[in-house]
Formats: sequence, structure tokens, C-alpha cells
Amino acid sequence: MRTEFFLLWASAQAAVAAIRPKNFIMVIPDGMAPASQTLVRTYLSMLNGGSPEAPAINAMPIDETPLGNTRTHSSNNLITDSAAAGTALACGFKTNNGALGVTPDGQALGSILEAAKQDGYLTALVVTSIINHATPAAYSSHSVSRNALPQIAEQQIGYSHPLNQSVDILLGGGRCYFKPQSDSTSCREDDIDLFAYAKDKGYSIAQNRSSFDALSSGRSRITLPYLGLFNDNDLSYEIDRQQQPQAEREPSLSEMTETALQSLDRARQCRGRHCRNRNDKGYFLMIEASRIDHSSHAHDAAAHLHDTLEYNNVMEKLINWIDAHPDTAMLSVADHETGGLTLPGYDPRLLQTPTHSIEYLSSQWDESDKSESYLRSDILPAYGLSDASDAEVQAILGDFSAGLADALSERAGISWSTGGHSGVDTTLYGYAAGRTGEQLKADMAGGFDNTEIPRYIEQALGVNIDRVTRELRAKGTGWIP
Amino acid sequence: MRTEFFLLWASAQAAVAAIRPKNFIMVIPDGMAPASQTLVRTYLSMLNGGSPEAPAINAMPIDETPLGNTRTHSSNNLITDSAAAGTALACGFKTNNGALGVTPDGQALGSILEAAKQDGYLTALVVTSIINHATPAAYSSHSVSRNALPQIAEQQIGYSHPLNQSVDILLGGGRCYFKPQSDSTSCREDDIDLFAYAKDKGYSIAQNRSSFDALSSGRSRITLPYLGLFNDNDLSYEIDRQQQPQAEREPSLSEMTETALQSLDRARQCRGRHCRNRNDKGYFLMIEASRIDHSSHAHDAAAHLHDTLEYNNVMEKLINWIDAHPDTAMLSVADHETGGLTLPGYDPRLLQTPTHSIEYLSSQWDESDKSESYLRSDILPAYGLSDASDAEVQAILGDFSAGLADALSERAGISWSTGGHSGVDTTLYGYAAGRTGEQLKADMAGGFDNTEIPRYIEQALGVNIDRVTRELRAKGTGWIP
Repeated sequence: MRTEFFLLWASAQAAVAAIRPKNFIMVIPDGMAPASQTLVRTYLSMLNGGSPEAPAINAMPIDETPLGNTRTHSSNNLITDSAAAGTALACGFKTNNGALGVTPDGQALGSILEAAKQDGYLTALVVTSIINHATPAAYSSHSVSRNALPQIAEQQIGYSHPLNQSVDILLGGGRCYFKPQSDSTSCREDDIDLFAYAKDKGYSIAQNRSSFDALSSGRSRITLPYLGLFNDNDLSYEIDRQQQPQAEREPSLSEMTETALQSLDRARQCRGRHCRNRNDKGYFLMIEASRIDHSSHAHDAAAHLHDTLEYNNVMEKLINWIDAHPDTAMLSVADHETGGLTLPGYDPRLLQTPTHSIEYLSSQWDESDKSESYLRSDILPAYGLSDASDAEVQAILGDFSAGLADALSERAGISWSTGGHSGVDTTLYGYAAGRTGEQLKADMAGGFDNTEIPRYIEQALGVNIDRVTRELRAKGTGWIP
Repeated sequence: MRTEFFLLWASAQAAVAAIRPKNFIMVIPDGMAPASQTLVRTYLSMLNGGSPEAPAINAMPIDETPLGNTRTHSSNNLITDSAAAGTALACGFKTNNGALGVTPDGQALGSILEAAKQDGYLTALVVTSIINHATPAAYSSHSVSRNALPQIAEQQIGYSHPLNQSVDILLGGGRCYFKPQSDSTSCREDDIDLFAYAKDKGYSIAQNRSSFDALSSGRSRITLPYLGLFNDNDLSYEIDRQQQPQAEREPSLSEMTETALQSLDRARQCRGRHCRNRNDKGYFLMIEASRIDHSSHAHDAAAHLHDTLEYNNVMEKLINWIDAHPDTAMLSVADHETGGLTLPGYDPRLLQTPTHSIEYLSSQWDESDKSESYLRSDILPAYGLSDASDAEVQAILGDFSAGLADALSERAGISWSTGGHSGVDTTLYGYAAGRTGEQLKADMAGGFDNTEIPRYIEQALGVNIDRVTRELRAKGTGWIP
């Protein structure tokens, strides 16, 4: 009997060890609508031979991984913004729209990233917006206002954060917030040089393609922490990025994800005297497909398609990564829906031709003579509207961005009901391998409030968010107004 | 060792028995949007003290039960209709829009209901539309066209079905299709009297409230099969039903569900000489909240709210039923989305005042003098628009139904993008208790094609759809054109 009991006990212990992930990845497709995945999947199915009259819709890798959905409202609005939603997903508390990592009355809230770091995990943020934008900021800073962008950047690399450096890898856009005002491309109004500070504190810095490639080299000696920012502002939409000259092309979200994963994994594997970052604990990685949201605000169906496709590429990469690294688990959920996207008469063929986003074409237009002939010769073909009607041309001349957006969306049977966010629940996806995966389904199939997501990760990693909250409040002296 | 092996084997057998459900319930909220549940939940939360500026959103019972989502396209259209979607959910095959229980080239397809019946299960259809409408018809008839309503009714009670009676309980609307043309309320163009036929074949018949109450009496001797139809056409929208005089009030979907469950359960429990329907095998029950779809086609936010609330009531009842009857499992998924519903600026307070659907008010209006004074005194208050602006009044006088729909939806921050269906995936819900529930999550958390749903039920109940298909094709001689 004793032997049997011991065997049962040992097997239960082994089960717990087999089930609990060592690494957790959170992926946020900002503003992705329930209809966005249908839009992308149908587009790819068309490329594989389907048509609106004979659909041959194939499931994409993430289509195997839905677990349910997530409620998104903030503490002061049925329609959340990305700051309140980011705070819910990062800290496990509702707050007011606009607030980051603080309660509605301005008290700091620890995040799952900070809690992981405090317990010895490596941490990383990989995004396509500016790195100090609401979602990544919610994981790594505390501010009554999401608009305090220079101060948020300071906190993110420990310049002014009571816990010092909490993020080992930062990849995205937003270079201008890290440069002193003396730099002509700065968007700071002070002399703080955050790149210099970061370098001094041991961060490796990458600001262009070649230094990104150095980061991602398998044999690189570049060690954690590192900070890679590849645009002064947001990174380019994926549709535009693909047209950039190879040598200067910004890294894609997939590429940045691959680099971050390799670095985090290397830090766990490394041995010997060159190993400065040996870490056996594991990591927490937050990846944001930030600009799905932007494309929906702009009703830019073409940009929306390609940024959502790239989110799918990242998710496919992660699923494969997890199969090869079964001590890793992943959840993914949009912070809210943007644009009120529906597909009343969707014809994906119309999305094949555009080669640029409206944002890019707008900047081209602003630098042009704004003539109808330039519109017809250069702009319309780049947005799949070579055969634009006179009425469409007049509408575009009247309101360039809205005219382009409406023309393409209407032709493609895509509808948007708002220039802002909407209140629908967002789809929760999740994946882990083997018994960890079974456990993830058992725990997380269902409907959740957004605040429950980081609490699950907290439990899975065995870290403590509330302890970080107490430490922040003990050390903090009022958060950025 | 032998003993240990035997214990393991016995425990594995017990596990299988504990996991496989004996009864399966499929619930279809026809046309329900991902946003519909947010709309309803937020409305109820408001009644409990929440407001748009201080949301206190409480999860409803079904909010604990999402499993993922379901793809909905048909074989000839990205946007399915209810016939092709019903066929996918009932038979496990894609077909063309408009076709019921047949392939695109008109070959019969067995349904999960027919397969269950063939294997000795009891079967039931409970709906709020006419009983011969697309969704229930897909489970119980075979027709190249969903429009062959009189012939579909014939098949449903075995008058002209090669498998004879496949449905033990039919509850819903559509009386007029069961009456010969000599009856002034008939919508047949022949002399077939399906009520008389059904009675002759042993069906108990209920056509009004009192005979429904007799069906639902716990001590009733009324046995299976039975046919209860409570309106010549569709049953009333829930919002209108609640205003009907008690003695004539149509049964609600919840009430019909309760009656069907009690009857199916009684048939399994009954003993002694009065027991004509002893059945130990189990049952398959399909419940459709049919008119969510109709409300969305009409952009009637008030009717949509109350029919979706009633779907939630049914689902709550089923969850409680399953807790008390853990040999029962349930899945629920909308066949498609209708209306392109989004919530760009939702204020649920505006949905509190309406007391009638636009359908009901339209019939009132058509019987009135159609004067502006009647509109202002009787119609507008009944749709929550007592303070309608002159522009709203003029719009309603110009197009009664659209004018009312647009006024309320616009005030309530609710948007519709189409008068038809849209292409978004629909939310898959599911529930079972104990280990059956764990297994259901393990099997069905994810994204599915709609054709995979009946295949899962087939496996869970251990029945064979394809065998029914072969039998139908052997016996059938061309399906209703």
C-alpha cells in the first residue's frame, strides 16, 4: 500500500511538473475584430483556388486554437481604449480609459511582466507600434495618462522606474522618444538621451536593419538586455514594409518574434564564460500586432488584411515553436474591437491588388501636386482602384483618406460602423503542447473578463502581481500625470 | 500484477462510460451575432445597476461556456443561408444555399436526428419559427428547396418520408401548413390534413395554450409522439409574447424546452402498464431560437434583445438541467450571423422602453388610419420613441419599419451593416457536467467547420449518419424540387 501511495504521489508530482509551463507568451492583436480572422482566412483560401461562389475555406493554424472569448469594457466606459484594456490584460484590474498601470484614482498596479521579472524570469516586449504605446506601456510603466509618451519611455528602460529595468528585450518603433531634443528627429522636449542611458545600463541598441540582423544572428554575442527600435514613429504597416528596399527594410513582427524567442531561449541554454545571461527560470514575452487597430481606425481594408495576416504568421510561428519547446504556453486575445468590422458581402478578390496603405499613399499625396492626373496615374493603381468611377475620384479628391477607404471597402463588401472602438467580446486563442495544452484547454476554454487573463498567467508561472503592486506603492511617489 | 491490470482496465471502462453522454442537446440561435451576447449581457448588467459610464458587467451563465467558434460558409456562397447552414449542422455536409438535407446535386443526406432515431433514441425539435422552417427542416426532411414548405411539413411527421416518423416531439409555429386548404387559415393548396394524419399515426396534438399546458403537466398521460404548433405562422417575438393575455399566451421557448425535457426524461423513467414510451437509450433534442435572425433582418434592436435574452434563458435552463442530469451534453452555435451587428456606441438604457416589436407595430399600423397623431399617441411610445424628433417622425411616415428600426438603433448606438447575413464566424458554446464536461472541452475547444458539429454528436451518441444516408438513397426517389 505504501508503495502504491508513493507511486500515486510521485505521479501526481510529475503531472504538475509536466503541466506547468516554464515560459508564457501573450499575443495581443490590437483592435482585431471577430470578423478579421474570417476576412484573412477567406482571402488566403481564395489564393488557394476558392471563390465567393465556390468557397474552399481552409482552417489556418490559429483556427485550431480558439478557447472562447473575452469581455473588454473598462471601469468608466462600455467601450474601452487600449490603455484601460492593456492595464486589464497586464495587471488584472479595471481602470479608466487613458490610464496605464494605475487604478482609476492613480495608484500603481503591478503587471504580470514586472511580477515575472521580480521572480527571475526574463521579459520581452515585441510590438509594431511605438514601444511606449498603450499596450506595451501597460506591461512596463505606470501613468495616469497614456499620452505621457516621453515619460513612459523613460520608465520602460528603468530610467525612472522604482523597479529599475524590468524589460530585457524591447523591439518595435518609437525611436524619437529615446533621443534628446537636440536631435532633429527627436520628439522629446528635454535633453534626456534614453539611448545613451540604456547603453550605459548595459542595453545593446539596434536602430536599423543591419543591427537588427546582428541581433538575430544565431552566433551573435549580443546579450540581453537589448533595445531595438526601427522607426521614429510606429513601424510601417506590413503591406508597406514589404515594398521597402531590402537593405533598409524594417523587421517584420514575425522576424522580431523569432529574434526574441531565440535570444530568450539562448539565455536559458548558454554555458561558459561568454554567457552573461544564463537563466533557467523561463520568460514572459508579450507580442503585439499593434497596427491592426490603426488600420481599422482608418477603415483601410488592405492594411488591415496584411497586418492581420502577419499576426497569423506570428501565431503560426509560435505554435510551431511551442511544439518544439513544450515547456511554453501561449494565450492571445484582442484588447478590443476597432472599426465595427462586418462582412456583409465580402469579395476577397478586391483585396489582391493594393500594394500600399492609405497612410503611405497619403504621405505621397501630400508631397505631390495633388492633381487628378497624379491621383489616376499613381495613387489609384496602388490601392487597387485603377478603374475608379468619376464619383469615386471626386470623393477621393474631396477627402483623400476616407475616399480611398470607402471605395475599396464598398467594392469588397466590407463594412465599418465606427471610426473608434466597438463593444463586442474578442476571441481568446491559446496553445500549449501535450499535457500543458490539455490543462490550458481545461482551464481557459470559456468566457473571461479581460482582467482574468494575467491572473491565469500569474498562476501558471507561479509569480505574484500583488507583491509587485505593494512594492511599487511603497517606492512610488505619484505616477506620471 | 493481474489484479492491478484488471483494476486499470475496469477503471478505463468506467471512465468511458462516465464520459460518453446518453443524451445530446443542440441549440441554434439563428442569426445570432458575436455582438448579440455583448448587447444582452450589458443590458442585464444595466438593470443590475451598471451604466455606460460605470459598467458593472456580470457574466451570464452561457458566458462561462464558450468553446471557440465555427465557420459558416456554404458550398456556393461565402455567406450561407439557414438551409445550407442547417444542412451542415444537421448532416455534416456542405450544400448550396436553399437546399435542405441534400447535396448540391440533390442526393439525400441523413441527419444526426434521423441517425439517432434509427438507433433507438428519442428525438425532438423545439423552435420559435414555423416548424418546417430551414433549420428544423434540415434535421427532419430532404428538399432541393427550402421553399417547399407544405412538403417539408409532410416529411416531418412521416407522411412522405422513407424513414416514416423520425421526430417524437415537434414544438413551434406553422399550424397553417398542417391544415387542408378547406380551412380558412390553411396555407396549403391541397386537401392534405396533416393534423388528422398525425393523430391517426398516434401523435397527440396541441394547438393552443391549454393543450400545451396539458402536455407540460407533470402527471399527464400524454405520451410521445406529440405535435404542438401554437401559431399559424412563426411564433410571436418574445417581446410581443409577453404582452399576450395570459390565457392565450403562446408558450415561450423556455417553456417548450422544459416540456420537451420533461417528456423525454419521463419516457426514460416510466414504468408499468401506462408506460407506452419506455426508452432507455437516450435522446437527441434540437432547440432553435429561430427569430433572433428575423429581428436582425428587420434591424429591430428591441425584438433582437428579447429573443436573445430568451435564448440565454433556455441555455441557463439547460445548464441547470445538465447539472441535474449529468448523462446529458449540449452544444450551441449560431448557423450564421445576420444583420452585420456591431456596437459602436451602445447605450442599453434606450432598449428599456419598447414593449413591442416592429413586426407587431406594423400590423397595428396597417390596421390604423396611418395618421401622424396615431403614430405619436400609440406607435412611438410602444417603441420607446415618445420623444421622436420631427425628422424621425417623417422618416417613419415615409418608411414605417425602417424608420422605427433606424431611430431606435441610432439612439442606442447599435449598427447594422446589411439586411441579409454576414460572413463572420459564430461563437460555439458547449456544456456537460463532470468528466463528460472535461471531455467536451478537450474535444471541442477550438475552431470548427460547421460540418464537424454533427459528426461530433454522432460519435458521442455512437450513431451512424452515413448509414441513414445510404438507406434514404436506397428508398428515396428524388427529393422535393
